[in-house]
Formats: sequence, C-alpha cells, structure tokens
Amino acid sequence: MVTAAAYAVTSSEGSFEKTTIERRELGPLDVLIEIKYAGICHSDIHTSRNEWGSTHYPVVPGHEIAGVVSAVGSDVTTHRVGDRVGVGCFVDSCGECDACRADEEQYCANRVTGTYNAKGRDGEWTQGGYSTHIVVTERFVLSIPDGLELDVAAPLLCAGITLYSPLAHWGAGPGKKVAVIGMGGLGHVGVKIAHAMGAEVTVLSQSLGKKDDGLKFGADHYYPTSDPTTFRQLRGEFDLIVNTVSVNLDIDAYLSMLAINGTLVELGLPEKPIEVRAFSLAANRRSLAGSMVGGIAQTQEMLNFCAEHGIGAEIEVISADEIDGAYDRVVGSDVRYRFVIDTATI
Amino acid sequence: MVTAAAYAVTSSEGSFEKTTIERRELGPLDVLIEIKYAGICHSDIHTSRNEWGSTHYPVVPGHEIAGVVSAVGSDVTTHRVGDRVGVGCFVDSCGECDACRADEEQYCANRVTGTYNAKGRDGEWTQGGYSTHIVVTERFVLSIPDGLELDVAAPLLCAGITLYSPLAHWGAGPGKKVAVIGMGGLGHVGVKIAHAMGAEVTVLSQSLGKKDDGLKFGADHYYPTSDPTTFRQLRGEFDLIVNTVSVNLDIDAYLSMLAINGTLVELGLPEKPIEVRAFSLAANRRSLAGSMVGGIAQTQEMLNFCAEHGIGAEIEVISADEIDGAYDRVVGSDVRYRFVIDTATI
Repeated sequence: MVTAAAYAVTSSEGSFEKTTIERRELGPLDVLIEIKYAGICHSDIHTSRNEWGSTHYPVVPGHEIAGVVSAVGSDVTTHRVGDRVGVGCFVDSCGECDACRADEEQYCANRVTGTYNAKGRDGEWTQGGYSTHIVVTERFVLSIPDGLELDVAAPLLCAGITLYSPLAHWGAGPGKKVAVIGMGGLGHVGVKIAHAMGAEVTVLSQSLGKKDDGLKFGADHYYPTSDPTTFRQLRGEFDLIVNTVSVNLDIDAYLSMLAINGTLVELGLPEKPIEVRAFSLAANRRSLAGSMVGGIAQTQEMLNFCAEHGIGAEIEVISADEIDGAYDRVVGSDVRYRFVIDTATI
Repeated sequence: MVTAAAYAVTSSEGSFEKTTIERRELGPLDVLIEIKYAGICHSDIHTSRNEWGSTHYPVVPGHEIAGVVSAVGSDVTTHRVGDRVGVGCFVDSCGECDACRADEEQYCANRVTGTYNAKGRDGEWTQGGYSTHIVVTERFVLSIPDGLELDVAAPLLCAGITLYSPLAHWGAGPGKKVAVIGMGGLGHVGVKIAHAMGAEVTVLSQSLGKKDDGLKFGADHYYPTSDPTTFRQLRGEFDLIVNTVSVNLDIDAYLSMLAINGTLVELGLPEKPIEVRAFSLAANRRSLAGSMVGGIAQTQEMLNFCAEHGIGAEIEVISADEIDGAYDRVVGSDVRYRFVIDTATI
C-alpha cells in the first residue's frame, strides 16, 4: 500500500479536510504518480455536494491530474520513472466491448471506472487527484509532452478533451464556422482548440465582459446572447455549435443559428430535460448531439495537439486549503478560467 | 388560364366540396399535368382543419401527385406531352441560395413554395393535387420511371422521400442496424426502402398487429413498444432510428436504443416540444436530428431507386367523395397504409 495525503469531504454539507488515503499496491501494470497539480472541474463540486445524488463519502475529487511517475509495475512498458504524465476522468474500462476496442473507453458498455467516486473492478471506491499520489493502470496514464507545463496541462485532461473530442468528431477546421456557447472553464479551452484547428470561431456569451480574452484566445467574433439581435443576425450561420453552459438555455433559439446539416453539441449536463421543437431540427436538417470527454487515444492526441499549438488552460493556482472558497467562486462564475490545486500544499 | 375541377375545404370545420379552380397560363418553363392520383398525407389533414393555424381558405390539399403531362411551355426541355410525372411537397424555390444550389431546395433560405397553402412568387396562393390538373415549373416536376404504377408512386412523392432522404443521409445500408418507429403511411415505406438499401431493419410498433405486414415489407425484426422489455433488450442496438410517429414519445427511452454515434431522426412533427435529457445524448455520443422531405434531385433518385427495387406504397384507392371519411380513418390509424384519391372521380 502507498499512503497518500489528500483533501476529502465526508458529507454533502462538509468542507474539505486534510486526510490520508491508501492507494493500492503497485500491480505489474500499475503506475505510481506523484501528483503535482489537480484542476477543479464543476463535476467535482456536484459530486462533493452530492448534487447528482450518487456520492459515496468520504470522497477525494479531482480528475484533471498532472504529475510525475515515481514508480512502475514490473510489466509497465509505456511509462518510466520521471515521465511527466496525466490522468483524466477515468482509470479503467472493460477493454473488451465494442467501445473499448474502438478506443472509445468513455462509452464502455460495461461502465468505465471514474477516477473518483466509482467502484473499481477490485470493489474499492476510487479516489481522485486532490492528493499527493495516485496509482493507475498504465493504459489510462497519458504522456504530457515537453513544452506543456504541468499546471496548465492539468485542466486539459477533462476540459480540454471534452472540447477537443466533439470539435474533432464534427470536423471543426478550415472553412467551418464554429460557435462556442459560454466562456468559462470549458469554453475558453474550446475557443483555443477550435481556432488552432483552423475554424472560424465565434463566442456566444451572455455579455461582452470577456470579449478581450475571447479574441486573445483566438475567437474571430464575439456576440452577447443577452441581445436578441444576435440570434437574428446569426440565423443559419454555424456548422457546429458547442454548448458548454450547464444551465438550461432556449435551445430552439440556438438551433436556429445552425446552417444546413449543422450540429449543436451539448457538453454541459443541465439539470432539467432539454426542450426542443421538432421543427427546429427539421429545418436545415439539424442535429442536437451529446458528447462525453474522449477516449484515451484521443486524449493523447489532444495533449500532443495542444503542446504543438502552445495551448494550455488559463489557470489560477490555489493551495489545498482554498478549495472550499474556490468552489464558491466556480459556482458564481468568478474564475478566469480554471482553478488548479498545487498539490505540494496538501 | 386552365380551369380544373378540384375538391376544396372552405373552413376548418368544413367538409370537402367539389369546386373549380384556375391554374395559371402556361409560362415558357411550365408543365401542365393531368393528375391521375393524389395521396392523402397527414399534413393535408392538419392544413384542412387549420391545426397548424396557418391555413388560407379555400384550400385544395395534396402534395403526393402522379399524372401525365398534357402540355408544356415553349422552353421546357425535360418533360414531354405524355410523360408520366410526379409533383411532391413544393413547386418553387429561389434557386439562388446555398441550399438551392446544393440541390436541397426544401431548405431554401428564401422559403420553398409549398404545393398548396403557400403564397407563390406570383403572389397567388398555391392549390394542390386533389384536382384534375396542375401547372408546375419544369424544375419541380419529377419523372416517374416505367415499371412504377402511378397510384403506388403518388405517396412516394412525400412519404417516400421523407424516409429515403434521412436513410440515405445517415447511411442506411449493409452492416447498419436501422429501426423504424411506427408502421403507418411513412413507416411502411421506410421499412421497404431501408431493406432495399441493405440495412438490417427493425420495426418498433406499439403492438404486433401489423407484424406480418412488416416482415413482408422487409423487416428483419418486429418489436412491440408497449412491452418495456423491448427497450431493455435493444439497449445500444441501432445505428439509426427514424421516428415516423407524430405524437410525443418518451424520446429518452428510444435514444437508449442507439449505439455509439447513433442518430434518431424525427420525421413526425409532434405538437409539443420534445423533451430530452442531456445525458441520453452524451452517453454513446448520440444525436437527435430532424429531416424534411428531400431535394428535387434526391426525389428523382428515390423514384428511380423505388422503380428498380419494385417499391411502391401500399394503398387504398378512394374516390374524391370519400375524402372526409378517409381523413377520419387516417386520424384513427385505420388505413393500410396510404389513401390515394383516384382523380378521375373528381
């Protein structure tokens, strides 16, 4: 066993407390990672506060993990001690279903094992990255390329792949008009990636408050959705819209901005069902789609792409004793653009 | 002017009455068609009864038209007197927008002109196929191939293309599992076409009442949706589901039957918004899409395909004085599978 320091909550109303957890003994295919940075994702907050009703306490959140390999099992071939590595939203899958064989482990028919708050195949509950160490089987450990700093890389493991995957899948690139709804932790990375892919990028944000940032990140256009003329002006405009906002929006209004064969991809998971008029889809043969992070192979591709294009998340580094306050600020949309915990402070 | 006999309604509560209407003088690019058969589509009923709130009375419905050319304008090159031809859901479009230039006139940015109850570019209201004659510009007149009888061809002009277009667009073919929700006027043609395209076809119908027909039309499997085990058994099964039912269904339940990257296409236009949970889309990267008939070029392709594969609609031929009763039977789902008016009875 490896004893690791961690920050955990023990109830939905509790605040984060320092604790120690046991990581499993290194198996032949396991990698022991000394965590350096852990990003704070909104899912961490939902889970800590049991807002999805499925939290098993105590829980150590964190699935945007960047660190350095400190030991490897006897049969590990893909990572070596000292390698800079990352771990994202899941740490295991069946490996045998169609999804796993197609490198789409996130859609594993036998349930992918989440990095935290999931029962692993060994029956133990997984614990995440707000911690000094983690043990992960090598197949789920990503390499962080040189030139990508660990702190700005950490959020790419969830926010980055959540945007990269649908942008790649629906063909964002030269000649394509892509809109990003929301300029938060997900959205700002989406702007950078879509721009680097060569698409013409538009941000649809409630206000123009972050316009300068948006243009700096690579947006070609920036429109306020609080202004109804935005919707009239951009009618039938986009090939692809990625929605990073997790509150319920008037989706029909956003669908009206799609060109023929356009797709709107929901990346936030709003609490209430999405309501959509059939005619909004029939007109222009539009699609409303969903997407969930990306497979391991594509996550590596994303990291390589980001390193090549100098893309990292915009971050605010905090110490572990600031997690509770950071959560409140995320909920209040008061972060530009992602909190990252310096795990040396745990 | 050409005077044509027709059946029209003059109010939302009115019944069909015989009348005469004027068709425009043949312009250089116009084709005068002697109508032989006109299919009854559910849209005709919605319009006659003003259920969409946009009916201009008196109205002559009918956009599943099959007949014979009886005169052509001086510059017409694509059709000759005596040719067997069809007219579908629209009779004009701007011809200049991206959609029109891409042979997707149905999505014309400047509004396609419906075959009836639409204001044409000349400012006159269009009147449809429950009539002895119609004048249509040649670009919107389809050729009905030899070997396809006019009566069974008529419903293909709307029901046929409504199914053919999404099946072709989303790649129904060998190795693909396609489900058709509903075995009515649209659904039964969908089964025939999807089967002819080489897909493995499943019918999802409320009951097993039409199972023998479904299998005869080419379905490989037939499941009752009134049985909850159907949904469990077919979880993650289909690449494509086409929904021909126009009442609101539990779409999340149907989405759960889609495999990775699967698409559910809404073809009926239910009255209330569709409610869908974001998670139903995110799981397996699913899409909920819409589709509206098809362009002229694709409609011709569909007619050629149907002729080649011996596909016609299953019809019940009625005389014009039976339209009101036929409407009631369509609303009560009491037709196998499409009513067609023999216009010689007008």
